[in-house]
Amino acid sequence: MTIQTAVLIETLTALGAEVRWCSCNIFSTQDHAAAAIARDSAAVFAWKGETLQEYWWCTERALDWGPTGGPDLIVDDGGDATLLIHEGVKAEEVYEKTGQLPDPASTDNAEFQIVLTIIRDGLKADPKKYRRMKERLVGVSEETTTGVKRLYQMQANGTLLFPAINVNDSVTKSKFDNLYGCRHSLPDGLMRATDVMIAGKVAVVCGYGDVGKGCAAALKQAGARVIVTEIDPICALQALMEGLQVLTLEDIVSEADIFVTTTGNKDIIMVDHMRKMKNNAIVCNIGHFDNEIDMLGLETYPGVKRITIKPQTDRWVFPETKTGIIVLAEGRLMNLGCATGHPSFVMSCSFTNQVIAQLELWKEKASGKYEKKVYVLPKHLDEKVAALHLGKLGAKLTKLTKDQADYISVPVEGPYKPPHYRY
Amino acid sequence: MTIQTAVLIETLTALGAEVRWCSCNIFSTQDHAAAAIARDSAAVFAWKGETLQEYWWCTERALDWGPTGGPDLIVDDGGDATLLIHEGVKAEEVYEKTGQLPDPASTDNAEFQIVLTIIRDGLKADPKKYRRMKERLVGVSEETTTGVKRLYQMQANGTLLFPAINVNDSVTKSKFDNLYGCRHSLPDGLMRATDVMIAGKVAVVCGYGDVGKGCAAALKQAGARVIVTEIDPICALQALMEGLQVLTLEDIVSEADIFVTTTGNKDIIMVDHMRKMKNNAIVCNIGHFDNEIDMLGLETYPGVKRITIKPQTDRWVFPETKTGIIVLAEGRLMNLGCATGHPSFVMSCSFTNQVIAQLELWKEKASGKYEKKVYVLPKHLDEKVAALHLGKLGAKLTKLTKDQADYISVPVEGPYKPPHYRY
Amino acid sequence: MTIQTAVLIETLTALGAEVRWCSCNIFSTQDHAAAAIARDSAAVFAWKGETLQEYWWCTERALDWGPTGGPDLIVDDGGDATLLIHEGVKAEEVYEKTGQLPDPASTDNAEFQIVLTIIRDGLKADPKKYRRMKERLVGVSEETTTGVKRLYQMQANGTLLFPAINVNDSVTKSKFDNLYGCRHSLPDGLMRATDVMIAGKVAVVCGYGDVGKGCAAALKQAGARVIVTEIDPICALQALMEGLQVLTLEDIVSEADIFVTTTGNKDIIMVDHMRKMKNNAIVCNIGHFDNEIDMLGLETYPGVKRITIKPQTDRWVFPETKTGIIVLAEGRLMNLGCATGHPSFVMSCSFTNQVIAQLELWKEKASGKYEKKVYVLPKHLDEKVAALHLGKLGAKLTKLTKDQADYISVPVEGPYKPPHYRY
Amino acid sequence: MTIQTAVLIETLTALGAEVRWCSCNIFSTQDHAAAAIARDSAAVFAWKGETLQEYWWCTERALDWGPTGGPDLIVDDGGDATLLIHEGVKAEEVYEKTGQLPDPASTDNAEFQIVLTIIRDGLKADPKKYRRMKERLVGVSEETTTGVKRLYQMQANGTLLFPAINVNDSVTKSKFDNLYGCRHSLPDGLMRATDVMIAGKVAVVCGYGDVGKGCAAALKQAGARVIVTEIDPICALQALMEGLQVLTLEDIVSEADIFVTTTGNKDIIMVDHMRKMKNNAIVCNIGHFDNEIDMLGLETYPGVKRITIKPQTDRWVFPETKTGIIVLAEGRLMNLGCATGHPSFVMSCSFTNQVIAQLELWKEKASGKYEKKVYVLPKHLDEKVAALHLGKLGAKLTKLTKDQADYISVPVEGPYKPPHYRY
Repeated sequence: MTIQTAVLIETLTALGAEVRWCSCNIFSTQDHAAAAIARDSAAVFAWKGETLQEYWWCTERALDWGPTGGPDLIVDDGGDATLLIHEGVKAEEVYEKTGQLPDPASTDNAEFQIVLTIIRDGLKADPKKYRRMKERLVGVSEETTTGVKRLYQMQANGTLLFPAINVNDSVTKSKFDNLYGCRHSLPDGLMRATDVMIAGKVAVVCGYGDVGKGCAAALKQAGARVIVTEIDPICALQALMEGLQVLTLEDIVSEADIFVTTTGNKDIIMVDHMRKMKNNAIVCNIGHFDNEIDMLGLETYPGVKRITIKPQTDRWVFPETKTGIIVLAEGRLMNLGCATGHPSFVMSCSFTNQVIAQLELWKEKASGKYEKKVYVLPKHLDEKVAALHLGKLGAKLTKLTKDQADYISVPVEGPYKPPHYRY
Repeated sequence: MTIQTAVLIETLTALGAEVRWCSCNIFSTQDHAAAAIARDSAAVFAWKGETLQEYWWCTERALDWGPTGGPDLIVDDGGDATLLIHEGVKAEEVYEKTGQLPDPASTDNAEFQIVLTIIRDGLKADPKKYRRMKERLVGVSEETTTGVKRLYQMQANGTLLFPAINVNDSVTKSKFDNLYGCRHSLPDGLMRATDVMIAGKVAVVCGYGDVGKGCAAALKQAGARVIVTEIDPICALQALMEGLQVLTLEDIVSEADIFVTTTGNKDIIMVDHMRKMKNNAIVCNIGHFDNEIDMLGLETYPGVKRITIKPQTDRWVFPETKTGIIVLAEGRLMNLGCATGHPSFVMSCSFTNQVIAQLELWKEKASGKYEKKVYVLPKHLDEKVAALHLGKLGAKLTKLTKDQADYISVPVEGPYKPPHYRY
Repeated sequence: MTIQTAVLIETLTALGAEVRWCSCNIFSTQDHAAAAIARDSAAVFAWKGETLQEYWWCTERALDWGPTGGPDLIVDDGGDATLLIHEGVKAEEVYEKTGQLPDPASTDNAEFQIVLTIIRDGLKADPKKYRRMKERLVGVSEETTTGVKRLYQMQANGTLLFPAINVNDSVTKSKFDNLYGCRHSLPDGLMRATDVMIAGKVAVVCGYGDVGKGCAAALKQAGARVIVTEIDPICALQALMEGLQVLTLEDIVSEADIFVTTTGNKDIIMVDHMRKMKNNAIVCNIGHFDNEIDMLGLETYPGVKRITIKPQTDRWVFPETKTGIIVLAEGRLMNLGCATGHPSFVMSCSFTNQVIAQLELWKEKASGKYEKKVYVLPKHLDEKVAALHLGKLGAKLTKLTKDQADYISVPVEGPYKPPHYRY
Repeated sequence: MTIQTAVLIETLTALGAEVRWCSCNIFSTQDHAAAAIARDSAAVFAWKGETLQEYWWCTERALDWGPTGGPDLIVDDGGDATLLIHEGVKAEEVYEKTGQLPDPASTDNAEFQIVLTIIRDGLKADPKKYRRMKERLVGVSEETTTGVKRLYQMQANGTLLFPAINVNDSVTKSKFDNLYGCRHSLPDGLMRATDVMIAGKVAVVCGYGDVGKGCAAALKQAGARVIVTEIDPICALQALMEGLQVLTLEDIVSEADIFVTTTGNKDIIMVDHMRKMKNNAIVCNIGHFDNEIDMLGLETYPGVKRITIKPQTDRWVFPETKTGIIVLAEGRLMNLGCATGHPSFVMSCSFTNQVIAQLELWKEKASGKYEKKVYVLPKHLDEKVAALHLGKLGAKLTKLTKDQADYISVPVEGPYKPPHYRY
């Protein structure tokens, strides 16, 4: 719930939608943006610094339009709204069949316990809520790598309950927001949180996907010596071609000054790594969930002391060594927690994709074009998103002649590339 | 026919193949490499500075194993060998039905006239040669963007005569050879041909695909001010995000010092552009065919004078202005014509794909796995190519735990990315 | 009065000094740093957001140790404390001779009117205050290009009242703080003030000295297209060698998105320039005084409207066009006004020079080594400052053998370079 | 004796000089340039691939205008012509006093033995030759860091025989030729000599002065991981600020792929280092003399085998390990030996300084302005050199107003910077 999402909400409202909104991250709400939207445009359930309980309460509130209301469409980011509905439906079905309520104790994932609790607590009062939603829902458009991965898993399992458009894999999203957005917001977050001089430092970037590429580029350009960790040999070779060293975290853990996780995976920096770091090493995550960093291991480490330097900037001191590390945004997305997220221009690319996806889902709601599967936007719409952003930057496109277009077998007006083209 | 292809030939020979070889470019043969291979490993039909007639004669010779011989497999680069066989088969079929020989005068494409002539001249003597080849051929593996485009067209038209593996679109080819190879070999070619100081110059890169990205990066890093021309709004927006100006060629033609075409299309820099350029502007092509630059228009411009400064470096002087431009490699690939092409490390990535593709085609020759279609290598082989190249550069990969692999739904040993991933 | 100066104060205190402190910029005080120092270490006269009157009141207060007190030494930044003493002495001498008080109306420089007013108001009460200071003062060490320029002018005029050490021209200051400090803090200030995406934008850097070089590098690396304005042909040629376009402000004023002044001169961006800028163009100064930008012209432009978006970020709307520009920090140093100034590591280089200069002045206070002139620190001290900072970054120096040292005619232990060496 | 010096000779000739010319490096002559000049403009004693004996014979020949001739002025590069005259004068004086001839056996420096031999062999025939030269000589202008160092040593010893202008320390020389020239010609030399892919490799740059900065920038931009060795803590800190690792050669000798010496000192890479390098590690020098690399140690290493891959590219194989290293240009300047030296644009900056220095020496030959000391060109001439090169690159300078010039205390027309300014 940032100023960029505020403009997205205003756009959707201008297009005729009625909107309810929550955040996708407990730290990422910009309260002034939330306040402005709450006053003028939409119901907002979001503030900076939610607890996890509050976060899921907000998600549930944003989805609740009352027994006869929406939502018709979901704009999702990370997939939590989609998850809640899917888990809600599952619980309702079990409850209907067996009378059994979801049991938070059935999982040791603290966050999932909250999800189950919320569903359980609402189940008796309205045992068909999530199924009503599912019936009504025309579809969801999903923003992130992580959320999309969940959708593809549900598609593979046959459990996806409504059509989904994968906005993340629009070129104008993944190759812009993820890459150029993070290239901007990683140093922004580091500087706002710590004022550390990046030049001269040794920085480890865990993961060299689009996010990692943006982070590594930003750190290198700012004068850091950057070391990459990777599991994928292709991405590793890309890092090497850019002059970056590729090592394992173990090789470098006691020498580096800054650690950034970008993997979308879990258990990347464990408390045993953190214990070996230099005093005042900075540890942060710009991947997706806070489990990229072993926050649980850190919080429960015997004798560890947390000193909050300022909100979202904590120094954790280990008892044996008295050395401390600086953890940003409690292991959550540091660009949202410590800075203002991605800048508007690149978010405009992403959100133009979102709006186009929402329009497409709505337009085709009765046509049967979209089944309960995951789709990407067709390339001509992807190119349209880019074209809409060129004028602002003063660019002039060259136009193909008919003859040239025929020569390379594309229409004069595009799309210009085959589907597998990588950009 | 460079030292890198020499090692490819030696590899194929070591794997048991009998090899005949020709070049894919009239200027790109390194004669010492050709001589060494001709002495030790294979029949070679290639030398630096062929005429077009000689070039196609070489292609025909390389394919001719005599009435009872091969080829069983083709390693192609640009698709000329594949083209010759397809045109040969077409001509044989017409001849068998109608007795009519191919007529070179039926086309005004000078090079295609030569192709038809070669086919015509051999047709009476052996009217089944190309059909015998077609029958025997297990498949082709194709190296370049341009060659692959032709294959997909043939697949779409239903005219493809044998299975084809698209090596170009292996990530370890297109995102390495095209990008990092050109980042190396463009400045190499410029420096060897002209010794021009790149710093401070205004350079225009026509096209911002993988090749254009590599060229623009190299020129920018060497201190040039780089301007990009593009038809594709997505690629244009990528250029802008890297701080490059995007204009049309007309906007900048009279101000720039260096012009590089990278499009894979034709008619990019026309003689009317060249007339307006600054004195001693450098014009070169690293895309694919020499028709990116209007060489025909230049050669036939009334009163134009060609002064050969050294082989592959010509100054063309226009009669009205007495100003001249420097054209490299007669409009053909300047990195091959003026320098030594891409360096071995990146070619090793490409050619490892080629070898794997050849092995795969041969292994599956009887299994029916490959129909008369175009295939890309499966991702685990692509990742294998990368993995084979990490050790040389001292990289250490991180290994996924089973738990992490499950979390992101990939096998521990890969492949690690979905097919649509763009790297 | 930032956290870095706080550590400088603590260092001076630890070395035995008694310290009084004020800021050099009305916006640059970090109030938490001021509070901590005021509590523990020194008298502090500084807060974020002073008026000009308050600023000079603070300066006067910081210098006032009472009739029998200091200062013995001045650590100056911009030369305002030094200026006040020199102007004070001048006024006292005139008053003693003629009875005439300084007349603020004698200048139309608004800030200098305040200086004269402050001196005038204190003159009757204590007509020898500044002369007592002058007598007692062992010397000043000056931090900035601007302040140093004033000192050399006073030396040339024969009006310098006490010895001065030019800390700015230590290599470990001017080539680090000015260059790498601004490379860090310019984008930091831009991002904190405006959240603008730098990638893709056209940025004009006025001046390509050390500060301009740092700014241009930062903007280029962040993906902007950077255009430099310069008066000095050597600096202009350096910009060109880095691929930057060199134009006049007039050439580009209506096309650029971001304007940064770094000149140390005045009247760089005038209100007539600002009127021609694009809507929401960002205008800021990281040079020295706020007169790099014609703030007076802007403030007095008929019908102009100032909209404060947040502190230090104002939108000024012109009545004719209704377009507005964003001015940062009211034209003052944007990295101090909108962000937190330079990061600690590079300030440590600068302040180590300051401390060494203060120690040197004090040690030689009776020796006559320093006359009423401007000195730079000897090179071995400059090298010592660098050497003290290598360990933190994990660097290992190579040691000269005696034989090698003789070969290049330097001592084994340095200094290693002739005085004119430029680094 | 390159095409750039050819244009310098033509310029001097056009200005009225009569010129005799030799090379400053046994490998750097471009024979076509030498031939053209020999035909049209000057006596040339230079060819590519001289022996050391031939080199000094050429130097002696170039200086010999016969008993009644010149030279009046010397354009020197490395100081060898100046050295020969000084040694010649010294020997003549000893001989006149004592009858003793110089004894080549008195030194174990092989090259200096040749110098003494040449002087000895000519001494009886003409025992006043060098003293006549000394008397006539108006002065020398010297191009290189190394040559200038010798001059300052002679000035310090009081042995300098004629005025000298230090062209190397013109900003438009040292900060352009040394920095941007090497940034261009280092990768050029590497690519022409070895075709090695720079991306992904580990490169060690010994020395981080202007030459080292240019080399490190080029290698980093081409995708290498660059490690710097330095003795000077200031230069080391600069390297760190650019993200480069600073280690000793011993730390990295067995891991790196490419080694470049840029120090101007001797004994940088010793045979014991070379023995520990990886197979096919590349070793080259772009500093000054070939003694940066221990060529003598390599050549005399027991059992070492030299395999000449092509001229100036030798593989030296150690007997114990059978591994070999690639040494470029026999340890001499690799950009001149393996490529074509610096490009014309940057050499034009250097040589414009040379011409201006020659004109200045000649104009003032009778005025006594220049004593037997070393001088740098005044800053306004340095700025003029830069200004003359801006137009070619399309730059537009901003002009100071009188008011602005007064404000920063410089003349409107320059010079704009104080002498100590570092650029």
